[in-house]
Amino acid sequence: MKSSLYIFSTRWEAHDLFRKLLTIEEAKQVLERSFSPKPVGVEHVHLSEALDRVLAEDVVAAMDVPPFDRATVDGYAVIATDTFGADEDRPVILKLCGHVSVGELPSVVVEKGTAAEIATGAPLPGGADAVMMMEYSVQQGDDLLIYSPVSRGENVMKAGSDIHRGETVLKRGQMPSSREVGMLAALGLTKVNVYTRPKVAIVSTGAEIVEPGKPLPPGKIYDTNAYSLSAAVLECGGEPILLGTVPDEADQLRAALNKALILADIIVTSGGVSVGPTDIIPRVLNELGKPGVLVCGIASKPGKPTTIAIVEGKPVFSLPGHPTSSLFMFYLFARPVIYSMAGRREESPLMLRAVAAAKMFPARGRRTFVTVNLTRNKSGRLLASPVPLGLSGAITTLARADGFIEIPESQQFINAGDEVMVRLFKPTPYVALLTE
Amino acid sequence: MKSSLYIFSTRWEAHDLFRKLLTIEEAKQVLERSFSPKPVGVEHVHLSEALDRVLAEDVVAAMDVPPFDRATVDGYAVIATDTFGADEDRPVILKLCGHVSVGELPSVVVEKGTAAEIATGAPLPGGADAVMMMEYSVQQGDDLLIYSPVSRGENVMKAGSDIHRGETVLKRGQMPSSREVGMLAALGLTKVNVYTRPKVAIVSTGAEIVEPGKPLPPGKIYDTNAYSLSAAVLECGGEPILLGTVPDEADQLRAALNKALILADIIVTSGGVSVGPTDIIPRVLNELGKPGVLVCGIASKPGKPTTIAIVEGKPVFSLPGHPTSSLFMFYLFARPVIYSMAGRREESPLMLRAVAAAKMFPARGRRTFVTVNLTRNKSGRLLASPVPLGLSGAITTLARADGFIEIPESQQFINAGDEVMVRLFKPTPYVALLTE
Repeated sequence: MKSSLYIFSTRWEAHDLFRKLLTIEEAKQVLERSFSPKPVGVEHVHLSEALDRVLAEDVVAAMDVPPFDRATVDGYAVIATDTFGADEDRPVILKLCGHVSVGELPSVVVEKGTAAEIATGAPLPGGADAVMMMEYSVQQGDDLLIYSPVSRGENVMKAGSDIHRGETVLKRGQMPSSREVGMLAALGLTKVNVYTRPKVAIVSTGAEIVEPGKPLPPGKIYDTNAYSLSAAVLECGGEPILLGTVPDEADQLRAALNKALILADIIVTSGGVSVGPTDIIPRVLNELGKPGVLVCGIASKPGKPTTIAIVEGKPVFSLPGHPTSSLFMFYLFARPVIYSMAGRREESPLMLRAVAAAKMFPARGRRTFVTVNLTRNKSGRLLASPVPLGLSGAITTLARADGFIEIPESQQFINAGDEVMVRLFKPTPYVALLTE
Repeated sequence: MKSSLYIFSTRWEAHDLFRKLLTIEEAKQVLERSFSPKPVGVEHVHLSEALDRVLAEDVVAAMDVPPFDRATVDGYAVIATDTFGADEDRPVILKLCGHVSVGELPSVVVEKGTAAEIATGAPLPGGADAVMMMEYSVQQGDDLLIYSPVSRGENVMKAGSDIHRGETVLKRGQMPSSREVGMLAALGLTKVNVYTRPKVAIVSTGAEIVEPGKPLPPGKIYDTNAYSLSAAVLECGGEPILLGTVPDEADQLRAALNKALILADIIVTSGGVSVGPTDIIPRVLNELGKPGVLVCGIASKPGKPTTIAIVEGKPVFSLPGHPTSSLFMFYLFARPVIYSMAGRREESPLMLRAVAAAKMFPARGRRTFVTVNLTRNKSGRLLASPVPLGLSGAITTLARADGFIEIPESQQFINAGDEVMVRLFKPTPYVALLTE
């Protein structure tokens, strides 16, 4: 048996070599040489729609925030030096000269020996350079008894101390969260320039697939990829355009791709790319325009039958039909391109160190991604167990996994007990408490 | 000076005691006793809109996935026992009995000694129990020479092995990502029941605030809270309703709150809650309905002047006017309530261990949150430095911080060099590589 397995695996390798499988990095390099992903456009959106959009330009403050010196407490606007020496036993006595309300220009000027009542947020009146907290003073008629000194600038928020005019408050490429949206509002802005979401056409191919919602004839399956890829496009900041399903037939595929090239900036297909250079999808892609197919097959598991092309200056990712493979290859190849075209910066991956719960073998000569679940063993160590049913044909594999392990092409195996790095799909309860 | 500071601080404490400041936990308990947040409704959405919505019911599979035994490779459907004993030198010879394409019901039955050509994804024909990979066999006329045995079930994905009928594939409360959306599609579903987004009315109060986009008269500032809180509501899965700004005046405030109670499930106001029980907001809230104000002032920094009420069975969060305080108190009190009413589960916080870069003092008797930035020192340790300008009046504090440190009421200070836990606002580059 051993000798025949050896013979067969060399036949298999020869078959692979014939198909010139590129490594993941080689495939990315080939793509990068032919296509530089850039944002596709800029649009104005209202501040209330700015959340999680991508800023298309730096935001430079056209005004100071606050626009004037503001009292930060309720109290009395004073000249700080007037209060020096005041203490509980020997209060300083100042004359009340008026009142400053919030939202009004002060009508008083604080002169030496005087104080003006002031509300939190009101503009500091001329002459004053500090605010005495109400709690440290007592008002007796027109006299104000002060029991504690204040220093210059105390309880005053200086004009421009939060944001100064001319300052770059947000950078191109930032995605405003609730914390940043307030900064835009503070500057009085209601419109911001954000990058247009790149349009991503999604085409499913295959004679066996049926759109969800329709009756399912025997021998057919529902199209899962169109919707999972559409959701994945939204997650990347793109706008999905669902173009439905087409059979593995050149004319219909050509028509669908032509429509996609008109409507979208990026095209993603799934299915129909299984057997190599004579496949219908690579052939049609090559006919549609130059340079055509750049990558036809990748030394990756899952995802070997992946084709990448550039047609009319637009990237086309033809992913396998298997749901897990197609979504995984989308994450690996299409996602970074959509991110760049959406103007987004790549996020830091969430990684956790764990221990392999079982021996794991990579596919011969291919970068292998093993989806895993995390559990904690009795001694508190984090265990990474391969997800059962980890077939590339399975729909549930990715949904049931916490993340994945990457096994290099050169590695023979990962032993049970070996330390592994798990890349998480999203924060899990295990990220609750992290140590550097 | 020291003695007078002591005297004043006890006066200050007495003032605080008079206001019966509750701790954060006490305030949460008081709220929980009067109000149990529940989802506000259920709506049907199309699968293409299911991303990041909250499932309102368990999704139970009404069918097997795959619906039939499928070939997972291109090859030949065989009876496994027929191939036993085959090797490179002594191939087993089977008779070709037909072909099975994808998307079709097989018209052939595989009998002992025969094999049917089969494409990836096609239904396994009757009689066959395994698929021989094309690469391990050679076709000669009607004969198929098989050079390797296959075991029963090999290269076959059994009906229901991915999802079996009756299985709960997604749970109520889950938020489908791209990985889960595909599972719904695989079951042929086009509509899912999700929780309605709770409506959150946002009212800004204050004589000094002006809506962004309008000219700014002297002494006024732009309303930042309405937009940052609106974005924060979106982040929680709520639907913000911006009701604009009202002056600190009872009739107008009452009118705005009455409108809010009609339109929304939750009300958030900011500003106008600075000086205690005689404040206009608590007074108006108490007039509007029972039980009225539950919490008036919290022993927290920032956020002391926070009022929480229940009116007509709806929670009202009256937050401070200071942008940092209001957003922080929103995160602390309103966010968990909106989460529950949106049907969401609370996320695991992202925490990182770091070293305090400077001495930090809590506000006397109050839980203190210090916003910090993370940097790495020369020896590679993560340093948490308080964000400069960490005033509650500042708009930029939260946007410029990576996260915050919580200092308990009882703690005197945190020393430079002490280990601290930083709660992150979002994943930072420092989370790139984590160790348990």
